[in-house]
Amino acid sequence: MSTEAAMTQLLRTFELVDSVRIAQSALTPSGVIGLPDFHRWFARRRDREAMDVRRIAFDEMRLWSTDAGTGNLVHDSGKFFSVQGLSVEVSAGPVKQWSQPILNQPEVGILGILVKEIGGVLHCLMQAKAEPGNTDLVQLSPTVQATRSNYTGVHRGKAVPYLEYFRDTAHRRVLADVLQSEQGSWFYRKRNRNMIVEVTDDIEVLDGFCWVTVGQLHSLLGEHDLVNMDARTVLSCLPFSSAGIASTSTSGADDFETAVMRSFSEDYGSLHSAGDVLSWITDARTENTVRTTPTPLAETTRWHRSDDAIGHESGLFFQIVAVDVRAGNREVGGWTQPMIRPCGTGLIAFLVKRVAGVLHVLVNARVEPGYLDIIELAPTVQCDPRNYTEEARPRFLDDVENAPASAIRFDTILSEEGGRFYHAQNRYLVVEVDAGAHVQVPSDFRWLTVHQLTALIRHSHYVNVQARSLVACLHSLSCSRPGAAR
Amino acid sequence: MSTEAAMTQLLRTFELVDSVRIAQSALTPSGVIGLPDFHRWFARRRDREAMDVRRIAFDEMRLWSTDAGTGNLVHDSGKFFSVQGLSVEVSAGPVKQWSQPILNQPEVGILGILVKEIGGVLHCLMQAKAEPGNTDLVQLSPTVQATRSNYTGVHRGKAVPYLEYFRDTAHRRVLADVLQSEQGSWFYRKRNRNMIVEVTDDIEVLDGFCWVTVGQLHSLLGEHDLVNMDARTVLSCLPFSSAGIASTSTSGADDFETAVMRSFSEDYGSLHSAGDVLSWITDARTENTVRTTPTPLAETTRWHRSDDAIGHESGLFFQIVAVDVRAGNREVGGWTQPMIRPCGTGLIAFLVKRVAGVLHVLVNARVEPGYLDIIELAPTVQCDPRNYTEEARPRFLDDVENAPASAIRFDTILSEEGGRFYHAQNRYLVVEVDAGAHVQVPSDFRWLTVHQLTALIRHSHYVNVQARSLVACLHSLSCSRPGAAR
Repeated sequence: MSTEAAMTQLLRTFELVDSVRIAQSALTPSGVIGLPDFHRWFARRRDREAMDVRRIAFDEMRLWSTDAGTGNLVHDSGKFFSVQGLSVEVSAGPVKQWSQPILNQPEVGILGILVKEIGGVLHCLMQAKAEPGNTDLVQLSPTVQATRSNYTGVHRGKAVPYLEYFRDTAHRRVLADVLQSEQGSWFYRKRNRNMIVEVTDDIEVLDGFCWVTVGQLHSLLGEHDLVNMDARTVLSCLPFSSAGIASTSTSGADDFETAVMRSFSEDYGSLHSAGDVLSWITDARTENTVRTTPTPLAETTRWHRSDDAIGHESGLFFQIVAVDVRAGNREVGGWTQPMIRPCGTGLIAFLVKRVAGVLHVLVNARVEPGYLDIIELAPTVQCDPRNYTEEARPRFLDDVENAPASAIRFDTILSEEGGRFYHAQNRYLVVEVDAGAHVQVPSDFRWLTVHQLTALIRHSHYVNVQARSLVACLHSLSCSRPGAAR
Repeated sequence: MSTEAAMTQLLRTFELVDSVRIAQSALTPSGVIGLPDFHRWFARRRDREAMDVRRIAFDEMRLWSTDAGTGNLVHDSGKFFSVQGLSVEVSAGPVKQWSQPILNQPEVGILGILVKEIGGVLHCLMQAKAEPGNTDLVQLSPTVQATRSNYTGVHRGKAVPYLEYFRDTAHRRVLADVLQSEQGSWFYRKRNRNMIVEVTDDIEVLDGFCWVTVGQLHSLLGEHDLVNMDARTVLSCLPFSSAGIASTSTSGADDFETAVMRSFSEDYGSLHSAGDVLSWITDARTENTVRTTPTPLAETTRWHRSDDAIGHESGLFFQIVAVDVRAGNREVGGWTQPMIRPCGTGLIAFLVKRVAGVLHVLVNARVEPGYLDIIELAPTVQCDPRNYTEEARPRFLDDVENAPASAIRFDTILSEEGGRFYHAQNRYLVVEVDAGAHVQVPSDFRWLTVHQLTALIRHSHYVNVQARSLVACLHSLSCSRPGAAR
């Protein structure tokens, strides 16, 4: 056998095929069901999955207690998660030293979306899932959203449906599989395993699950409080590219959607090379120092505990609270738990601009105390504006707050993870500025293409969860987005 | 201005040009000086840089002391590095729990090679540098090899030459810039910034420095104890590819050198896709748990301290020792310091095989307690064979120890970092096995191409320092290697 023939047989070159199939699914506005049917199904699930959630005092929690020595809130199993203190020293920023409560959940959970070709089009198996922290309770979630405690039985709950497809991937096609961080201000070094796995065999669609196309998910991302954070972060890991959809656009066109689409591909170039972007990140990780020391919760300074809340003396930032949850259709019938309750609605925004016809996104190399590796790339603006004095006002916040309606390309209220965060809503925005605006930016900001962000998201610890949500939203803004009603 | 014209002007697509220039330099056996002249220069430097190094008792050290509370060895400045204890629990392997001494050096140093086109060929500015731990004292080092303490004056030494080129890269071409781990059994979460920076202006070649081509470095890598660890890890970060040298080989050839060359490019395919490799790494990081707790050095169990050594009761593994260094031509005239002294010579080997004409390398997802993210990819074999009982004998060690001479493609004694490690030599090997051997491997091993390793080395925490050394050695085995004497 010749070498050439052997190579053909044994070795493969890969992966473009996935991005083409994903792009085709993004172009498909109606899958096994249309969006009107989806909404009817989802409304029924919201009724069925109703939960009763009320705030309680800390000492009303069951299976949770306050550690006598540290004041930490801990689960009786010693597993699951705990609320502890963290002392933080950073080298840059308006405040260089503070202490705060933080969630410590050392175990790695799985956030997984199962995909399958149905009628030649990739569909995603999504779940209508209630979480106590969501204002509307039920949101659209990945196929699987499970902590290790969930699936190893610490909760003594029901088996997690479809988990086996993500626990054993030996003979399946894996489209994405990466450990990603979550909120670095609220979680200490938490990571979840974000997975997209393809099935080719027939699988039963259980109650509460539904097949939708990527195009349908893109439409749904534009609805308030519908697609949950876990679904958004997994969607951001899709190997999304314009390779498969380039031909649907006029190559010379200069409209916004075409600029977005060009930004999905490295072929159209970028202001900075991939190497320069990596060097910039390395520099930020070298020049910033972050020293964190886990401490007893009782020793966090300027944070005070009442019967039912631990809050900062300023009334700003967030509180630790406790909730009692009664649910019918859940792994466990009812439970209590501590949660983080932010004190306001945040603003999370990308400034974007068309540079020579290619969309660029302004990202910020941001320090958060819970990151494993010092900085991650964050949206241009990520804050609750009320937490800042006029002198410490976040950069570029004016551009977002004063943007004319015509410049606002995306504007939706979305929730953070409803299993840990109580009514944690943020307004997610994509705001376009002129090509000539902000040509010079501070050294901790850079204009990147969406492709460059997507390439970084294949690896851990580069792009934070808020920026990943916005990347999923940017996917929905290309010309591949079906014209479905928003 | 049309969009196309604007794109041409503003945006660029990048980087292939670097790998072509590197490949051309790899093909150049003689640069501004030939190898015989290099050796004469290097021999002179070995004479000039002579150092007097002798072991002393711990309490003879100056500026270092034993902390009364912990027994840790600490520098009076509180900076630099310290020797402390580490308690380790792991979920897999023959030993699940132990404690050990470990070096803690939280500051990030710079390992940098300056490159410049001379006569149209890239040259690397290398330094003949003495380190107290090297058996021959002087080895070939990067242009810059500096801890943060070095260049911020904690040592009160001379300024570090050429450092400014790596501290301010704003208007320079950066070929590589990435934080890389070092020995995870000896260092706790140590990282150095590996940089390759190009200069175009004329620069003075100081005493002790020399311009050599990549091809010359490849020849020198085959000499015992000549190219130091810091130079090897930086060289492994070169964006090395066969793109520029493919045409120099017969495409149908099936010889070893051609298989190595094909392995530098993704065009020839691989047994596993890049996505599958990332998924395998994610799985290893999810399934393995490593819990490390810094402890007082005095509390490491089964380690005992005498006047001049801290060693394991078995006599195996390594010792902590102290040395007194007298040097003429150094930032500081003389100093004392603690060092790690391994108890034997290690064996570090890649098994490689030609799969359909493309070289594949057997890597191991290896847990070491000092890693920031649980596992890194290591050589097939990385051990001191004497440290293991027959039952715990490292896998694939038999393949290396029993390999026929004709299968040994690389075999050189190289030293680990001579600034921290005392006489730490390893035998580095590349051993070829038949294409039909080890088709099935344990789940913590995978056959990867060199290109796949090179792509991972662009990011932190994927490829360990021993494997990076071997990647630099593999670069020297392609058909691009000049026929210089070994």
